[in-house]
This record gives sequence, C-alpha cells and structure tokens, in this order.
Amino acid sequence: MVNVCVNGYGTIGKRVAEAIAKHPKAKLVGISKYTPDQDAKLANASKLNVFVPKDSVKNFESKGISVNGSVDDMIARSDIVVDASADGKGMQNKQTVYQPRNKKAIFQGGEEAEIADISFNARSNFEKASGKQFVRVVSCNTTAYCRLLKPLIENYKIKHISAFLIRRGADLSDAKGSALNAIEWKAHSHHAHDIQTVLGNIPISSVAFKVPHTHSHINSMNIIFEDGIPNKGDLIDIYSKESRIAVLNTANTSAQIVEAARDLELPRNDTFVVSMLANTIEINEGGVFFSFSVPQESIVVPENIDALVSQSGIMSKEESMRLTDEIIKIPKIKSSLEKIFA
Amino acid sequence: MVNVCVNGYGTIGKRVAEAIAKHPKAKLVGISKYTPDQDAKLANASKLNVFVPKDSVKNFESKGISVNGSVDDMIARSDIVVDASADGKGMQNKQTVYQPRNKKAIFQGGEEAEIADISFNARSNFEKASGKQFVRVVSCNTTAYCRLLKPLIENYKIKHISAFLIRRGADLSDAKGSALNAIEWKAHSHHAHDIQTVLGNIPISSVAFKVPHTHSHINSMNIIFEDGIPNKGDLIDIYSKESRIAVLNTANTSAQIVEAARDLELPRNDTFVVSMLANTIEINEGGVFFSFSVPQESIVVPENIDALVSQSGIMSKEESMRLTDEIIKIPKIKSSLEKIFA
Repeated sequence: MVNVCVNGYGTIGKRVAEAIAKHPKAKLVGISKYTPDQDAKLANASKLNVFVPKDSVKNFESKGISVNGSVDDMIARSDIVVDASADGKGMQNKQTVYQPRNKKAIFQGGEEAEIADISFNARSNFEKASGKQFVRVVSCNTTAYCRLLKPLIENYKIKHISAFLIRRGADLSDAKGSALNAIEWKAHSHHAHDIQTVLGNIPISSVAFKVPHTHSHINSMNIIFEDGIPNKGDLIDIYSKESRIAVLNTANTSAQIVEAARDLELPRNDTFVVSMLANTIEINEGGVFFSFSVPQESIVVPENIDALVSQSGIMSKEESMRLTDEIIKIPKIKSSLEKIFA
Repeated sequence: MVNVCVNGYGTIGKRVAEAIAKHPKAKLVGISKYTPDQDAKLANASKLNVFVPKDSVKNFESKGISVNGSVDDMIARSDIVVDASADGKGMQNKQTVYQPRNKKAIFQGGEEAEIADISFNARSNFEKASGKQFVRVVSCNTTAYCRLLKPLIENYKIKHISAFLIRRGADLSDAKGSALNAIEWKAHSHHAHDIQTVLGNIPISSVAFKVPHTHSHINSMNIIFEDGIPNKGDLIDIYSKESRIAVLNTANTSAQIVEAARDLELPRNDTFVVSMLANTIEINEGGVFFSFSVPQESIVVPENIDALVSQSGIMSKEESMRLTDEIIKIPKIKSSLEKIFA
C-alpha cells in the first residue's frame, strides 16, 4: 500500500484526491488547505483528512473547519506527494519541502519541465517514471496531444504537425479569466515544446487562442506524413482502440459534450477522455486534418494516478491504466459518449 | 457618372452607401428600407434618399421618417443595384426584380455563388466583372483569404492550404448569435469552396469555429508549397506592399485592434484591411503558418465599390483600387495600424 497525500486542493487536487481514495493499492493520507474557504468545507463534507499549516490550525477551527493535523504531519506520513498547488508554487514546495525530506512528488503541467526528472503521459512513457523522485504530469492540452500522437507515431512517420488551440478563457469558478469580448493569441505557444518533453524531438508548431467561454479546449491538428498517410477509417480504428479517447461522429459544439456529461450524471461533468471529433477528419494533399475537445479540468486525473503507480513500481503500464480507468469509470464514459454522438 | 442604389441598409449596406456617396464617378440614387427602424432614421439623419415599398410609405411617414419614393422608383433610376439584403433574399430580388428589368446587380457573399456570373475579389479578378450583369462580392473571410493568397499564388506554387477560422459569434447589434458559453464547429466549412470560386482550383481545406465574442474573425493558415518556401522576410515584404493588408508585429488580441480603431477615430471603428499578424509567422518543415484578423463588417466595402466600377467599365483595376482606397482612407488606416503595432 502506497501512502499518498495531495498538497493543494483546487481544480485538479480535489479530483485526484477522490480518485486516490478509490484506488486499492493507495491510501489517501489527506489533503492540504492553506485558506479556510469553500473547498476546505468540501473536504470536511467529503470526510477527507484535512491538514493545514501549523500556525493556521486555530484560524481554520474558528471557521468551523475540522483539522486533522499540520501539513508537515501529512507530508511525513506520505510516501508520495501529489503537488496540485497553484502554478509556480510547486517549485517552491520542491525546494523547501520535498527535497529536504527526500520525498517523492508529482507536479502538474503548470510547472516548468525542469522541475522533474521526467515529463509524464501514461500512454506515451509510463515506464520512465518508475523509481523517479520527481515526475511532472504534463498539462491538459499536452496530455491530449500525447494521447493522440503516440498511437500515430507507432504506426506512421510524421513529417510535421501544426497545432491550433482554442483555449477556454477560464474555468467555471475562476474569478479572473480572459477578456470578455476578445480573442487573445499566443504565437509560437509553449505547447509545441511541451509535447516534445514527452514525445521527444517530434517536429511541431503551435499557436494558441484564448476565447471567452468556460468549457473545454478545442484543438485542431494538421499532420503531414513522410509517406503512408492514414485514411479516415485507419484513424477511427486507431483511436477507437484507445481507452482514453472517445470517437464522436456527430458533436458540433463543446456545450453538447458538457450537456451529455450532465445527462449521464458524471460527477462534476468530468469525462477524463479526449473527444476526437471524427466528423472533422479530412485527408488531403496536406496530410491529415482533424479537431478534438479537451476536458481541461479532468483529463490529467488518470495521468496523476498512473504516475504515482509507476513511481512506486507496483504495477505494469497495462495493469495500472486498466485499473485507473476502471476506478474513474472511463470505459463506461467512453462508450456512453460514443453512443450519444454515434 | 454611374447611378447606383443600395437595396438593403444594414451592416454592409450602410457602409457601402456612404462610400458610394463619396465616389467621384458614382451617384448614390438612394437606399431602401423595408422596416421603419433605427437604421431608417439614421438614413434620414445622414441625408440619404430613402425609398420604401409603395404600400409602406404611409407607415414610414407616420413614424416620422421622410420617404423619397418607392423601391421601384429607386431601381428604375439606377444603372446598378448593390444588393445588401439579408442572406438568401438576394436570390429572390434577382428573380423578381433585377432579371425582369434587366438591371445590373452586385450581391453579397451570403448568397450562393450560382447567383452571379462571377464571384469577385478586387485584388484577384477585378477584370472579370467587367460588363457582367450579376457580380457576387465574396464574404468577409473569403475576401481576406483572397487578398492574402493571390500575391502568394503569383510568386509561389502552393501544394495545399489548411484554413482554421475562429468566427465572431455575432455582430454587435445582432439580436441573435452564437451560444453564450460554447465553441461551435463546422467541419469542412464552405470557406474552402468559396475561396475556389475566386481563385480557381487551389487545393484547400477549412474548418470554422464560432465563439462568443463580437469583434473580428481570427484566422490561421498552414500553407504547404510545392517548392521554394517564402521566409518570414519575404512574407512581410509581399504583404507590406498590398494596400488592403496591414502588417502588425505586436498585436496580441482582437480587442487591441478595435481599440486602435477607436483611438484613431475611424468611423464605426472600420479598418477595411486584413490585419496580418506578423508575430505569428512560423516557417517550418510543414511550410508556412500564420494568423490574421478580419474586420467582418467593413472588409467587403472596398470590394463592392470596385465591383461596380469594373461592372461599369469606367476605370482600370489599378485606378479603381487606388481611388476606392483613397475615398475610405485605407492608406492612412494601414499606415496608422502598422505604426501602432510596429
């Protein structure tokens, strides 16, 4: 049994904590909170052990929040820390907490690649996290690109990828986000390089646009091949077999996918899977051209679980991915979405 | 002197009417209104001749709107009708009004290509409208693609173009528009085919996304060449010389361009030009990759003017484009935007 805690209980932290709590080989020591807000009360209501900085205990308790100990206690009792703190805070935690105590930690994609020994995507490089002290699960879009590109790389020789990202302006509960009536662009966005931290020196360019909506990133890729271009049937065959990719034929808006998640009563509307929009596939002189939808809040949850399993060396890639999928019901989600958008 | 009327006084009609009124070789007979709304009062305030359906005269006058005659009178007095009515209404007007009276007409890009003898873009095929009875000015995005692609076609052999469009959800005054919190996509969008109606059988694919904002379309293109790829300097040289393309180096959001148009006190914030976002240019194994901004309400205004000049055969392409640009101050707009975003 691996003892795991989640340091930072926000968008990613709360989802990962719940998944760890359901894992038969992991024990959730608890989660940390630094401010006595709505999420702290949620953790109490969810019967999770809540740890806070030593000198904040009284403040939390005065606000009616039950505290199980200090963050120091939580870290001491854990074999692995999943660091889900705000972007950039992970580096500070590494230097002041994890390194001095020689703890294993998993960071999120908001941190620079240099924070960890390896940038991780379960489908692409599960084994490389084995035994590593520091692992970084790449960000939501990068995770989606890795899930989609790795199976292609295994079957074809890619000459170049052009990636066009339309990012959501903010998550639903973010107080600040994109401009309300504008499209913002980031030329030469970091995504191209970030994908290379997992997939190696794959030739790729990316541009990212930020638009005022809250549900999902919508991405498009134009892939040029050295030779042997897959046809539409090949692509659908390849992606249908991937457990964390749902192949949708008839979706036309990001909202339809969220509506389906609500209809299916998925907790927090989380789908965890990349939705490959099969109706957008086009094969032409330029190669292959298609779009896909990324559930930005939940896609990295299974990757965090697989990362800690690989780090602990307790299961093989196939065993881990299958178990993780089972715990958060990915097979049922994939199958339901594929039926609704058949 | 060519007598011209504008049938339909909405987003495009009101802009085109004002430009015609300033043209030394054209006389604006007047504009038509079918409902006694804000725009009808604007036309009065702007001292334009307002024509309405015969049996609506009393209704308009009862609402305090001065009427100069019937739509039938207006058409009879005109050599050319610029049809700026709602999408699809143009075909009805052609069949019931322009064809029976053997009138020349210019339609907008919301109509099918089949409505006209030729789909028109001044830079690409000015001469082809000469003497034609029916001309269709292609839509805003298609106009932008033609302005950008024609100079490339003249200099390079293109193998394939992938076009990614992020469309505004609605114009500012539209009562209905896109979903408020969603991205909508149109796979295999009509834009690829529409560009071919002007540029011929150029190999192109397009996908269009609609997002909830009101200012400008933002487009990206990935262009693959048969051989001889332009570098960044070549592209900037080529586009800097184009009168209806502004080359911007430092813009990062669509709103910045609108803000500049307000700062420059441009009427209605109209820029008429494609803003080529030079900071997005990337040259790679996949070819050339860049983005551009399209002022959806004003970009087709100069094309409508050039179309009627070509149709009338009164000037050469170069004379007409230069005069049109001068009338609506495009050289000053291009130069100001290029300085602000240098």
